[in-house]
Amino acid sequence: MTTLPRLLEAIGPLDDALAAEARRHLDNLTKPPGSLGRLEELAARLAVLRGGPPSVARPVVFTFAADHGVTAEGVSAYPQVVTVQMVENFLRGGAAINVLARQAGARVVVADFGVASPLGEREGLIACPIGPGTANMARGPAMSRAQAIGAIEAGAALAEDAMDAGADLLATGEMGIGNTTAASAITAAITGAPPEAVTGRGTGVDDATWRRKVEVVRRALAVNVPDPRDGLAVLAAVGGFEIAGLTGVVLAAAARRIPVVLDGFISGAAALVAAALAPHAPAAMFAAHRSAEPGHALALAHLGLAPYLELGMRLGEGTGAALFVHLARAAALVYREMATFKSAGVSGPA
Amino acid sequence: MTTLPRLLEAIGPLDDALAAEARRHLDNLTKPPGSLGRLEELAARLAVLRGGPPSVARPVVFTFAADHGVTAEGVSAYPQVVTVQMVENFLRGGAAINVLARQAGARVVVADFGVASPLGEREGLIACPIGPGTANMARGPAMSRAQAIGAIEAGAALAEDAMDAGADLLATGEMGIGNTTAASAITAAITGAPPEAVTGRGTGVDDATWRRKVEVVRRALAVNVPDPRDGLAVLAAVGGFEIAGLTGVVLAAAARRIPVVLDGFISGAAALVAAALAPHAPAAMFAAHRSAEPGHALALAHLGLAPYLELGMRLGEGTGAALFVHLARAAALVYREMATFKSAGVSGPA
Repeated sequence: MTTLPRLLEAIGPLDDALAAEARRHLDNLTKPPGSLGRLEELAARLAVLRGGPPSVARPVVFTFAADHGVTAEGVSAYPQVVTVQMVENFLRGGAAINVLARQAGARVVVADFGVASPLGEREGLIACPIGPGTANMARGPAMSRAQAIGAIEAGAALAEDAMDAGADLLATGEMGIGNTTAASAITAAITGAPPEAVTGRGTGVDDATWRRKVEVVRRALAVNVPDPRDGLAVLAAVGGFEIAGLTGVVLAAAARRIPVVLDGFISGAAALVAAALAPHAPAAMFAAHRSAEPGHALALAHLGLAPYLELGMRLGEGTGAALFVHLARAAALVYREMATFKSAGVSGPA
Repeated sequence: MTTLPRLLEAIGPLDDALAAEARRHLDNLTKPPGSLGRLEELAARLAVLRGGPPSVARPVVFTFAADHGVTAEGVSAYPQVVTVQMVENFLRGGAAINVLARQAGARVVVADFGVASPLGEREGLIACPIGPGTANMARGPAMSRAQAIGAIEAGAALAEDAMDAGADLLATGEMGIGNTTAASAITAAITGAPPEAVTGRGTGVDDATWRRKVEVVRRALAVNVPDPRDGLAVLAAVGGFEIAGLTGVVLAAAARRIPVVLDGFISGAAALVAAALAPHAPAAMFAAHRSAEPGHALALAHLGLAPYLELGMRLGEGTGAALFVHLARAAALVYREMATFKSAGVSGPA
C-alpha cells in the first residue's frame, strides 16, 4: 500500500562520499578529466543514486492524461476532446511519445487520471480516474485535498509497480488540454513569479488568448490563495489530476533513489509540488530539456536543476524525457565500459 | 577514383520546394505545429537532403588519427605518444567513441592518416598515412599542397566506400595530440578572428601553456600567411593530415547529399576548409554540439550552423557526433512513423 507519509519519510539526502568515488572513477577513464562535460556530471549523479556503476537498461515513461475545468475559460487553442483523442493515439502507438519511447527502448505507461469523456476498458490503458476532469480553478479549487492525495498515491503506486518489475529510470509525461494553465498557476504559486512571467503560449494560442490565460492564472491564485509552502494546498487549488499523478511518480522514484527524468513545463510543475513536499527530492530529478514555455526555466531554477537539452520543444507527453534517455544511457555506458588509462596503457599528462 | 574537382562540382544548392513539402508533412502530424522545436527543423533538413522521408539506419563515424609537428612547441598537456596509444584503444574498443558509437548503432572507421609512431598492419585499422606527422607549422607549412589534396581524397574515398555500402549518415571524429592548435590556426585564418579568441585549453593546458599556444598560432599564421579564400592553402599551411581527411569526408557526403555530422572544434575546422572549397557544402552539414573550445562557436557561426547539443564536451574522437545520432534518428522516426491528424482522428485547433 502506497501512502504519502511513508514516501516523504524515505526521501533524504544522498551520500557525499559516493560522489567523490564516482568522480575518481570518471577521472581514471581514457580521456582528459572533464572532457565529456555534462555527460560526466550526469554519469556521476546516476552513480551516486545507484551507489555504484549506473545502468539505464529498463526506462519507463509515465504518460498521464486528464482534463481541466479551466478550459471553460477559453485558454487553449484546441478543444477539450483532443485529450481523449490523443489518449487513443497513444494506445495505437501513433503519437510522438510512442515513436520516441520505442527508439529509446522505453515502455510507455498510459494512464487515465480523469479524462472528461469516458474511455472504458481499453487494452494498454490504466484507469485511475480521480474525476471527470478538475473543477474550474478560476472559480474555486481544482480538486479537494483528498483527491490530490489520491492522485499522488495512484501515480506513486504505478511507479512502484514499474520499479518492482525492474525499471531503472522513470520519466514523466502528460496530456491534458488546459494543463499549461494549471502548470503556470502552480509555478507562479510556488516560485513567487508573476503570472505573466510563467504563462506561455501552450499549444500555440494567439495574443488575445494569451492575455486571457494570464488573467485566468491571476484569478485562480486570487480566488484560492494557496500557501506556497504547502504543496498539497497548491496542487488542490490550481493543479490537475495528471499533474498530481506525476508528483507521485517523482516521489516514489526519489524514495527508492531511482533517477526520475522530468519532461517539460507540466512535469516541472509536478516536480515543484514534489520538492515542496520533500525538499531532498530534487537529488533524484533530471531536467531532460528546457521547454519553450517561459515558466519552465523558472521552475528548473527553483528546483536547482540545469536542463541537458535545449531544443525549443513544447509538446509534452514525455517527448523531451524520451530523448534524454539516450544521454542518460550514454553516461551510464561511459561509466561502465570505457577503458582506464592503466588498463589501456595510455600515458597521462606530460 | 576520387578526385577533388569532381567532388566540388557535384556540390550545389538544394531544392526549396522539398523544404516546403517537408514542412507540410510535419505540420500534419499529431502535435501542435512546431511543438517539437529543433527536432522538426532537423527532420525537415534530413528530408530535403534525401528528397523524401529520412532514415538514419546506418550511420558511420570516421575517426581519423595523425600527429602534429607543432607539438615540438609544447602546446599540449599530453605527450605525442598518446596519439598512437589512443589509436590502440580505439582498436580494442575501450575509448569513449567506441562506447558511444556502439550505443548509437554506428560503425567506427579508424584510419591512420599519419601517426608518428609506426602502427603496422592491424585488424580494424585503415592505413592512409600521408607522412609521419605534419611539419611544425610555426616554422613553415605543415604539409605540401599535394599532401593536402592526397589526404582529402583519401578521406573522401573512405566516405564513398561507406556510402556505397549503404551508410545514410556520416560523422566526423579525430585523434591527434596538438590538433587543437592546428584547428585554432585554421579557424583564425578562415574566420579572421584573432588567435586569442579561437585558441582554447585543448586537453587541459595551464595558463602559461595557453599563452604559448596563442603565440604559436600567431607565429604559424605570420610565417605562412595563407590566403583565407584558398581552402587548400590554409590546410597545407596550418592543417593536419587527419583534418584534411575529414574535409574529404565532408565533401564526399555533401556531393551525394548524405547528411554529415560535425563533431567538435577540429571537425569544425575541417568543415571550414570544405566550405571554403565548396560554398554549398554546409547544406549537408549538421553541427552535433557546441564544444567547450572557444573557437568552435566562431567556426559554426561562419558556417551558418546552430549546434543541437551544448554539453560542454571537448573530447573529440567523434563523441559529440555519436550522441547527436540519436537526435537525428529521432527526427527521422518522427517524420516516418507519427500518425497524422487525419489518420488518428484527432481534432485540429478549435
